[in-house]
Amino acid sequence: MTASLNLNPSKLAMVPFVSVDNMMKIVNTIGAPTMIAEIAEYVEADFLRWDQFDKTPRVAAHSKEGVIELMPTSDGETYGFKYVNGHPANMARGFQTVTAFGVLARVDNGYPVLFSEMTILTALRTAATSAVAAKHLAPKNSKVMGMIGNGAQCEFQALAFKEVVGIDTVRLYDIDPAATEKAVRNLANSGLTVITCKSAEEAVTGAQIITTCTADKQCATILTDNMIGSGIHINAIGGDCPGKTELHKDILLRSDIFVEYPPQTRIEGEIQQLDDDYPVIELWKVISGQLLGRVTDNQITLFDSVGFATEDFSALRYIRDQLERTGHFVELDLLADPDDPRDLFGMVQRAYEN
Amino acid sequence: MTASLNLNPSKLAMVPFVSVDNMMKIVNTIGAPTMIAEIAEYVEADFLRWDQFDKTPRVAAHSKEGVIELMPTSDGETYGFKYVNGHPANMARGFQTVTAFGVLARVDNGYPVLFSEMTILTALRTAATSAVAAKHLAPKNSKVMGMIGNGAQCEFQALAFKEVVGIDTVRLYDIDPAATEKAVRNLANSGLTVITCKSAEEAVTGAQIITTCTADKQCATILTDNMIGSGIHINAIGGDCPGKTELHKDILLRSDIFVEYPPQTRIEGEIQQLDDDYPVIELWKVISGQLLGRVTDNQITLFDSVGFATEDFSALRYIRDQLERTGHFVELDLLADPDDPRDLFGMVQRAYEN
Repeated sequence: MTASLNLNPSKLAMVPFVSVDNMMKIVNTIGAPTMIAEIAEYVEADFLRWDQFDKTPRVAAHSKEGVIELMPTSDGETYGFKYVNGHPANMARGFQTVTAFGVLARVDNGYPVLFSEMTILTALRTAATSAVAAKHLAPKNSKVMGMIGNGAQCEFQALAFKEVVGIDTVRLYDIDPAATEKAVRNLANSGLTVITCKSAEEAVTGAQIITTCTADKQCATILTDNMIGSGIHINAIGGDCPGKTELHKDILLRSDIFVEYPPQTRIEGEIQQLDDDYPVIELWKVISGQLLGRVTDNQITLFDSVGFATEDFSALRYIRDQLERTGHFVELDLLADPDDPRDLFGMVQRAYEN
Repeated sequence: MTASLNLNPSKLAMVPFVSVDNMMKIVNTIGAPTMIAEIAEYVEADFLRWDQFDKTPRVAAHSKEGVIELMPTSDGETYGFKYVNGHPANMARGFQTVTAFGVLARVDNGYPVLFSEMTILTALRTAATSAVAAKHLAPKNSKVMGMIGNGAQCEFQALAFKEVVGIDTVRLYDIDPAATEKAVRNLANSGLTVITCKSAEEAVTGAQIITTCTADKQCATILTDNMIGSGIHINAIGGDCPGKTELHKDILLRSDIFVEYPPQTRIEGEIQQLDDDYPVIELWKVISGQLLGRVTDNQITLFDSVGFATEDFSALRYIRDQLERTGHFVELDLLADPDDPRDLFGMVQRAYEN
């Protein structure tokens, strides 16, 4: 018994761990477009049962360099949380601006059932969520997406909109041409027509959907009012913390604004520029058919995305369901599991007697 | 470059992980009594710089079966949090009532620097904290401790009080004689005189210190007023959540009450039985010399322990400092670290080309 505790901890003590390497293997096994589309189904399914979730504001620890956040949620059966940092100065120092990991646990006994990297997974779920929103809000038969900001999110968004919304063309612009070149290279075999543009104005020309995903800008104005024609769907990703916005306020005033969770978006999203009671529409109500999304051809719809805990939960739930299918995980000996729960000390004391 | 990402992720991507097996090895390498005494030094050092810590209430997700909590804190340089569950019905189903794990991270860039099991570590830090409190509050030259409740915390507490406070005798009582027998067996070579008692009254006879660490009781009365003579120090461990207390209210009214963090203890500790403005003394103020602890020989002192985030932080900080000394950890590939932070997609895409 004692030896088996060490060399072969009981099944109860083990928690599946998906490392970065494993996550890359999962993406490459399933294929990024398929995986994003499948995560989109999980995100949509969880938006459809919105009322079942405990929705807690993030727990943030702010410092002068950045923020570390815990984002917990629960559907009553499964509990999940994500640890995520945001440090704008990291990139210049050779670190990632955002890194993340997450946990799922059983509500009935509190035992973790999954521990996973979430830097890559967050990129996948953010793109999946944008595509779910666009499926309900963008003009029917949208084929062209303008993308302003060609950083870490760019390719994930492009693939999500191809797979879930059905676009066939992306028009790319970034203030740094090297970022655009990187995206062109990475999308070479995606099946998308990729057009490089010299300005934001050029990128949005002829597009039915505009995605803004710039980073490291404080209250920038990526899009101005004159760039936005009628009937456009705007997928605003980059404005996601206090003091960080991408769109001119006049665009917001012309748009119907759809958000994940109003209490969080009013602090972090584009709508931090508006009054606290400015009317916004909760995305889950559109997905569940309680409210209408796009109703006219010339309406401007805006998804003011900041990322919400339920989306991380959906993505973790998806990964848990892929463990057997892909086999890309290891078991971590994370939970002490003495034969007699009252004998924790004895377990430690006798661990190496043999 | 690409192959090295997978087979040998950069140092930045790796986070040291202390599994249950590694934690047991660390305890056995250092020795439980020494390790508890060393953790006590870290706990005491952090109580001395109390003002430096961000003190957030726990973030709790309650269900009918139990609770899952996140306990974050930060000293401005290092951030830490613990995940811990409490499920009273778990033991009957073959699971641990409490399991835990924790993380330390750098505040300046948000990168995790330690991921560790904390079921065993919490037992060590709880005992260490009790001993630190008793060092400042118990009668000088206390030699005998009565222990009511001989479950998972019992031996850790006994060793902590021997090592840090200097007791030489423990008097054990539990409603289940098997629990007491287990503790007697585990303490056989501890150097303590261990006396088995048939009642709580017998266990406290002649003791200068009384430790109550019962579990799974809702508002029980382990100690009644007539059992408590003058001059006693009470170390009350078991009452640590709403609706869970161990001491009769009359004992509280006769005692000077010392607590970790009043906003949390008023909800979770023995003092949930008292008015919200009942005077209590913050332990850190005694440790730092700002307030007096024990002032007379016949005073009853009560440490109403519930466990606070800074203590977990201290314990994790200690473990991080033992990594090199003991070598008992593995590196987890937890953080995505592309050569170009904007090229997360390319990292994933090219991961298995070679």
